[in-house]
Amino acid sequence: MTLLEHIREPQDLKALPEVRLPELATEIRDFLVQAVARTGGHLGPNLGVVELTIALHRVFDSPADRILWDTGHQTYVHKLLTGRQDFSKLRAKGGLSGYPSRAESPHDVIENSHASTVLGWADGLARARQLRGEDSHVVAVIGDGALTGGMAWEALNNIAAAKDRPLIIVVNDNARSYAPTIGGLATHLATLRTTDGYEKFLAWGKDVLQRTPVVGQPLYGSLHGAKKGFKDTFAPQGMFEDLGLKYVGPIDGHDLSAVQSALRSAAGFHGPVLVHCLTEKGRGHSPALEDEADRFHTVGAVIPAPADAGRGPGTRTPVIPPAAPTWTSVFGDEMVRIGAERADVVALTAAMLRPVGLGKFAEAYPGRVWDVGIAEQHAAVSAAGLATGGLHPVVAVYATFLNRAFDQVLMDVALHRCGVTFVLDRAGITGTDGASHHGMWDLSVLGVVPGLRIAAPRDADQLRAQLREALDIADAPTVIRFPKEPVADPIPAVDRIGGVDVLHRAPRPDVLLVAVGAMAPVCLRAAELLAARGVGTTVVDPRWVKPVDAVLPPLATEHALVAVVEDNSRNGGIGWAVGQALRDADVEVPLRTFGIPDQFLAHAKRGELLADLGLTPAEIAGRISAALTRKEKQS
Amino acid sequence: MTLLEHIREPQDLKALPEVRLPELATEIRDFLVQAVARTGGHLGPNLGVVELTIALHRVFDSPADRILWDTGHQTYVHKLLTGRQDFSKLRAKGGLSGYPSRAESPHDVIENSHASTVLGWADGLARARQLRGEDSHVVAVIGDGALTGGMAWEALNNIAAAKDRPLIIVVNDNARSYAPTIGGLATHLATLRTTDGYEKFLAWGKDVLQRTPVVGQPLYGSLHGAKKGFKDTFAPQGMFEDLGLKYVGPIDGHDLSAVQSALRSAAGFHGPVLVHCLTEKGRGHSPALEDEADRFHTVGAVIPAPADAGRGPGTRTPVIPPAAPTWTSVFGDEMVRIGAERADVVALTAAMLRPVGLGKFAEAYPGRVWDVGIAEQHAAVSAAGLATGGLHPVVAVYATFLNRAFDQVLMDVALHRCGVTFVLDRAGITGTDGASHHGMWDLSVLGVVPGLRIAAPRDADQLRAQLREALDIADAPTVIRFPKEPVADPIPAVDRIGGVDVLHRAPRPDVLLVAVGAMAPVCLRAAELLAARGVGTTVVDPRWVKPVDAVLPPLATEHALVAVVEDNSRNGGIGWAVGQALRDADVEVPLRTFGIPDQFLAHAKRGELLADLGLTPAEIAGRISAALTRKEKQS
Repeated sequence: MTLLEHIREPQDLKALPEVRLPELATEIRDFLVQAVARTGGHLGPNLGVVELTIALHRVFDSPADRILWDTGHQTYVHKLLTGRQDFSKLRAKGGLSGYPSRAESPHDVIENSHASTVLGWADGLARARQLRGEDSHVVAVIGDGALTGGMAWEALNNIAAAKDRPLIIVVNDNARSYAPTIGGLATHLATLRTTDGYEKFLAWGKDVLQRTPVVGQPLYGSLHGAKKGFKDTFAPQGMFEDLGLKYVGPIDGHDLSAVQSALRSAAGFHGPVLVHCLTEKGRGHSPALEDEADRFHTVGAVIPAPADAGRGPGTRTPVIPPAAPTWTSVFGDEMVRIGAERADVVALTAAMLRPVGLGKFAEAYPGRVWDVGIAEQHAAVSAAGLATGGLHPVVAVYATFLNRAFDQVLMDVALHRCGVTFVLDRAGITGTDGASHHGMWDLSVLGVVPGLRIAAPRDADQLRAQLREALDIADAPTVIRFPKEPVADPIPAVDRIGGVDVLHRAPRPDVLLVAVGAMAPVCLRAAELLAARGVGTTVVDPRWVKPVDAVLPPLATEHALVAVVEDNSRNGGIGWAVGQALRDADVEVPLRTFGIPDQFLAHAKRGELLADLGLTPAEIAGRISAALTRKEKQS
Repeated sequence: MTLLEHIREPQDLKALPEVRLPELATEIRDFLVQAVARTGGHLGPNLGVVELTIALHRVFDSPADRILWDTGHQTYVHKLLTGRQDFSKLRAKGGLSGYPSRAESPHDVIENSHASTVLGWADGLARARQLRGEDSHVVAVIGDGALTGGMAWEALNNIAAAKDRPLIIVVNDNARSYAPTIGGLATHLATLRTTDGYEKFLAWGKDVLQRTPVVGQPLYGSLHGAKKGFKDTFAPQGMFEDLGLKYVGPIDGHDLSAVQSALRSAAGFHGPVLVHCLTEKGRGHSPALEDEADRFHTVGAVIPAPADAGRGPGTRTPVIPPAAPTWTSVFGDEMVRIGAERADVVALTAAMLRPVGLGKFAEAYPGRVWDVGIAEQHAAVSAAGLATGGLHPVVAVYATFLNRAFDQVLMDVALHRCGVTFVLDRAGITGTDGASHHGMWDLSVLGVVPGLRIAAPRDADQLRAQLREALDIADAPTVIRFPKEPVADPIPAVDRIGGVDVLHRAPRPDVLLVAVGAMAPVCLRAAELLAARGVGTTVVDPRWVKPVDAVLPPLATEHALVAVVEDNSRNGGIGWAVGQALRDADVEVPLRTFGIPDQFLAHAKRGELLADLGLTPAEIAGRISAALTRKEKQS
């Protein structure tokens, strides 16, 4: 039996003699490499926090002490040490979540895997603890990249203001590479003010930055400039101490005794304190270490490429290039072509350059793409500035992350009628990453933005065409949304009415089936099933789903029922908008809407979730058929 | 003819001899005091930027150079110097906007008056200018309070990263009071590095903080702590220089020659530079200066109290107490009562303690309310932490500002089933503050959040009752929304079915009229008009509008038409949600929804806007009547 197998809860870890800890760390690394090779998942970030997590659970007393993790994909080690060692169904339906989960364990607190939230959570928990007179610890672990998010700044301002409220911030600084001597030296200099350590640390930062590969100076200059700006403030006399936070570090995050010592010192301090740990992403696994670009941030099981879902500094595309074109690659390739034709087209992304497909554009036009950091608000508002300055920015982000910039899309971009195109990758049900990665509210939330237009392409040709249509609109924001899946096979139109593509016609049409974007194949299959039952269906793809095309209401009058199928929350979705269009035209044809009900979705494969929600051809055909039968009986 | 009357455009200002400028400043102050006394509006902030605005237009060449204003209520002087001197209809329909407006002038850029946006805009404009090879200036004016917003941090990170991209940030630090000698000394020391000025500035900050009235240490300690943290970093060796921004200051913002000199020096610098101006809110107007709490931030015309709408540091309630209870005061008073009964109830707000009615609660329970700064994201996420820590937080903000925390409400509060109550003041059409202050999307955007419940009280009794109902829900977020208007007279229910109040019944009901919150009086009056036409109406108030009460579909079947009236965008609103509930119950009774169409609304009085949108009893009755007639003809 291994050491790891003996650990059922943190108390077992505490009972282990100090000298056995390196052995445990090795076991954990071996476990992770083997487990993630089988299931896929986040490898690099977890290999980087093995010692840090061991130290946290040695020093603190979870769950009485609350250990909070930002961007929860770095919690595999935490799971292993808190009674969860069956990784066989990691991120699969019924198996362990890839993120913290309150349903799994009392040791988990934050399930939201969007970055930069942890300091706000910690501030609230610390205030509650103080008001209730409790004396347990609140410990927040955050990556250096996540500190670029505005939420983190808002939280630091508040945390630092309360000098008497204990709260421990552990900055997990998983820089790409660092000179081990600095970490080692810093270990022995881990006092609250270490000028010598600071100066060596600055030298280290400079060294790292000079060695980092540069693809187009303005692009990476921007990224690294932001990073460097941050690094500089990591000094005792930098930003954190200016704000009033005590600073401990930098600490070698792989030196178990140094990290434990720093955490114990922080735990004894009667106010907010920041512990700065230097860690190495992919630590201890040579393939991960050798992969300069990625550090095995996320890896797929065996061969396929379950594209990157977690996010943080250094997040990059999967290691193994996908075999078939994806929505992402179709977008990325078309952007390169458009870039050659139009000098005014520029691109923005938020710490996700390659995952959203802008890598090739960045290589071709290095001065025309900016990565703003984990800062969606800034991506949107600066896009308004770019558009006002005469350019057409394309803001490419995951659908779920644009939620953080709703106010800026509404008030800065749309109110000012700026020609900005938002490209939402991973829209709809994304699958195994769980509740906070589904892009299932974009159609609803963006649907309320006056003047904004939304395209939901059904295949690669439409994606290319609609991207170009969007870039031709200079006086309103546009949105293109597509899912995570491999791009659909070409789906030809048999006709176009107004802006609407007719994909299928029946001799005697009973039902008008409106297919939103990637739901087109599901709808075409449902039409076949309905035909077998003697129900004739017209299947249309509206292409632009906001505003609702004016041809839909008159088209509806030729049918006995209208059905809308979308990969989005039903609440506020395209189905509801079509309902309004029908009412406004005094068309009283019954409507049925198929989408995601008002609930959060757990982690499972996209297909499994669609089936659970009844978004399958059989279910849709059956419910349409039943509605028609009921209608006939009533009349 | 006055000097001011001679100025039709900035060129005229440039032609004025330097020695005449103080005279012009005096004229402008007199103009503002008189004009705002007639119309109401933001007085204090504009009195504080007279010299700064003159200097900006002397040094820069707007509109070729772009002068950008954060939280646009400080642009009255800018308007006066750019050809807009008719203030007779300020903030009234057809008159000047209280904020910048592109429709008014090419000198205006940002119409969004939400705080902290300007640095993002400036970054985008500066990037565009650089890419297009233009050499005009981009100048962003931001208040010190707005720097607490996360967006500002995201922008600073990006701006500082591009050392070769010129951009001028003017921090308008309108602290409550300061020792004039510091400003004067700093004038002569306005170099890029002024240690002496810094040390005196720190001493000044300490002095100011010690003299500021303290109501309950934790509350104001928090606010001032955040502010102090920021002030400290205003030193040359502070945060901005750490990030790589050049720093000029501090400058006496009322010394015309000093400000012009600093701006000229900044304009000649080939990179991002920050000019720190100390200004005095309410400068030159003794009533404003004597008002310690408010500095005449916003004042009403003559007597009534058009409650505070603009926001920034020091924003407070109107000077003259309102005669009648407002929704805000009813909420505030009830919170004090609840606070005495329940020790677990705490409150949060974002730089709006008194405007949202939490002043009395703060005085009664100083340790149980926190002002987090202009940081709605932090308000929401730290509320999740507070709830998880065993408290029930009430987050009180203006409806329009919660848009900035949508992701946190969804992912941190709702996903974690936290018992947090959001109280949205100024929901619906707010009136004269214009497009970015209407709270017209809250029902739609919050409507997609799984598990969240929304209450729209129709009168003071309901507000009190529903607030208590919300506070009894510990496992889901709740929202209470109400408008800016004086609270409605009590509206008794004649019956309650399920959770729905019946407000009016007709002997022979034709129409089910669903009144959302404050639209109840409008609906009751519409029912009277319909009765006169022989149409019987049942008027119901669903009280909780999300989720839709299960009694509504069966109730609908007893009527020939359902109509929903709401003070919110129709897109995604309660009307659409009721439509879904009817469809899910296979109820095919026709539906009509009355709300705000998919557009931004200009500034005008609430009543004028409601009339323009057809949200009046006559228009609603007429359209319902027409729909019924059409239906009878069809059947």
